[in-house]
Amino acid sequence: MTTRPSLHTSLSPALVHLYDVNNSIVVIIDVLRATSTIATALYNGAKCVIPVDSVSRCIELGRQIEGITAGERDGKIAEGLENGNSPFEYPREFVEGKTLVLTTTNGTRLLHMALERGAKEIITGSFPNLSAVCDHLIEMKRHVVLGCAAWKDKVNMEDALFAGAVISRMREHFDINCDSSHMAEAMYEKGKKDLFAFIKKNNASHYHRLMKFGLEKDIRYCLTADQANVLPFYSEGKLIVKSSTA
Amino acid sequence: MTTRPSLHTSLSPALVHLYDVNNSIVVIIDVLRATSTIATALYNGAKCVIPVDSVSRCIELGRQIEGITAGERDGKIAEGLENGNSPFEYPREFVEGKTLVLTTTNGTRLLHMALERGAKEIITGSFPNLSAVCDHLIEMKRHVVLGCAAWKDKVNMEDALFAGAVISRMREHFDINCDSSHMAEAMYEKGKKDLFAFIKKNNASHYHRLMKFGLEKDIRYCLTADQANVLPFYSEGKLIVKSSTA
Repeated sequence: MTTRPSLHTSLSPALVHLYDVNNSIVVIIDVLRATSTIATALYNGAKCVIPVDSVSRCIELGRQIEGITAGERDGKIAEGLENGNSPFEYPREFVEGKTLVLTTTNGTRLLHMALERGAKEIITGSFPNLSAVCDHLIEMKRHVVLGCAAWKDKVNMEDALFAGAVISRMREHFDINCDSSHMAEAMYEKGKKDLFAFIKKNNASHYHRLMKFGLEKDIRYCLTADQANVLPFYSEGKLIVKSSTA
Repeated sequence: MTTRPSLHTSLSPALVHLYDVNNSIVVIIDVLRATSTIATALYNGAKCVIPVDSVSRCIELGRQIEGITAGERDGKIAEGLENGNSPFEYPREFVEGKTLVLTTTNGTRLLHMALERGAKEIITGSFPNLSAVCDHLIEMKRHVVLGCAAWKDKVNMEDALFAGAVISRMREHFDINCDSSHMAEAMYEKGKKDLFAFIKKNNASHYHRLMKFGLEKDIRYCLTADQANVLPFYSEGKLIVKSSTA
């Protein structure tokens, strides 16, 4: 009877091989802060975002294409780069029409894994573009893998919370036989009234790490829905905006 | 200042390499139903439980040592074995003084991984022996890895809930910088009033699988604390009872 597509959540890149990536749309989730910043830069008119996995590659590519180079190590702009990872560094007046070359380790690695496994389509998800992601997935009616970038393969709370937020909105459109998804949703339902308070109370490791760097404003923004509601779509090495009515 | 030992939760065997197993006590968790049945058989006087990873090995060893052979495939007693996986098959009048040779795939595999990685000590945990596990871990004051057996490497809800129950009782005794642990605890806190209702409502895959086989009674027992409060301790290929006041 059911003709609904399936939905699975991979809580870590180390688990992504368990899912049928090659038959699915993969959503790359790196809430604090890569995918939130990607959505924000594109929402504010960046031509595209090129995710790279190292500072040296970022510097090299930035020179070649005259892009903005961005990335952090230990909470500071990485040596040789121009900008950091905060979404607040990419207002329209700065980023419009430009190409952002962004180093991210966990998210870029997962993206490459999804590519190698033949994902049908790769998009990025974060609270700032939650609705765009959900609208697109519901419309496409294809199998979905929600891929949490995690932190050096260790499961993290904020990426799982975003997976839970997506599932909470899309539950009736998908066939979900996946405990990770149900756990993420249950956690999101518990925390959704105040996600900032939830990750604080539950001692999320990135909460502590970013608060130490004075980035409360970043965390709050990255946990707020639909402030940069575009759909970043991966194509030929770049993330570009795709209309949610594909 | 802090001299508390660390506690981490590995939500799947595919993540266990991320943790310092060789410096830790590892708790093998396979709530439905392997570790619940192990605790029950030992509580009811079994001499020991030998976990093996295949039906053929179970048959072979059962013959050699004249043990009770036990294991299921697709909800039925596996061909060639005498008993199934239900804790209710092992009352005192049946199991006292005997050796149980039990095939489990996920739990046994994780146990072997912990052994290979040089775990300081390996014990098994389940709701029926929740207090014995917590009392022991608090007393030992060593680093702990809560190892969920999961299902073919896919994270499952009931093992994570047990990890959450342990953490909920031991939080102040350990230094917990581990999102998986905090997520497990948050989920347990949400569901603890009625764990059966929680896994039903949240569509745990093993809930559906076991209900299909008519095993509601097993599920309810396996989610109830301290009905078989012993500490199964792994030593030289066997699980034996260890007093919680080690």
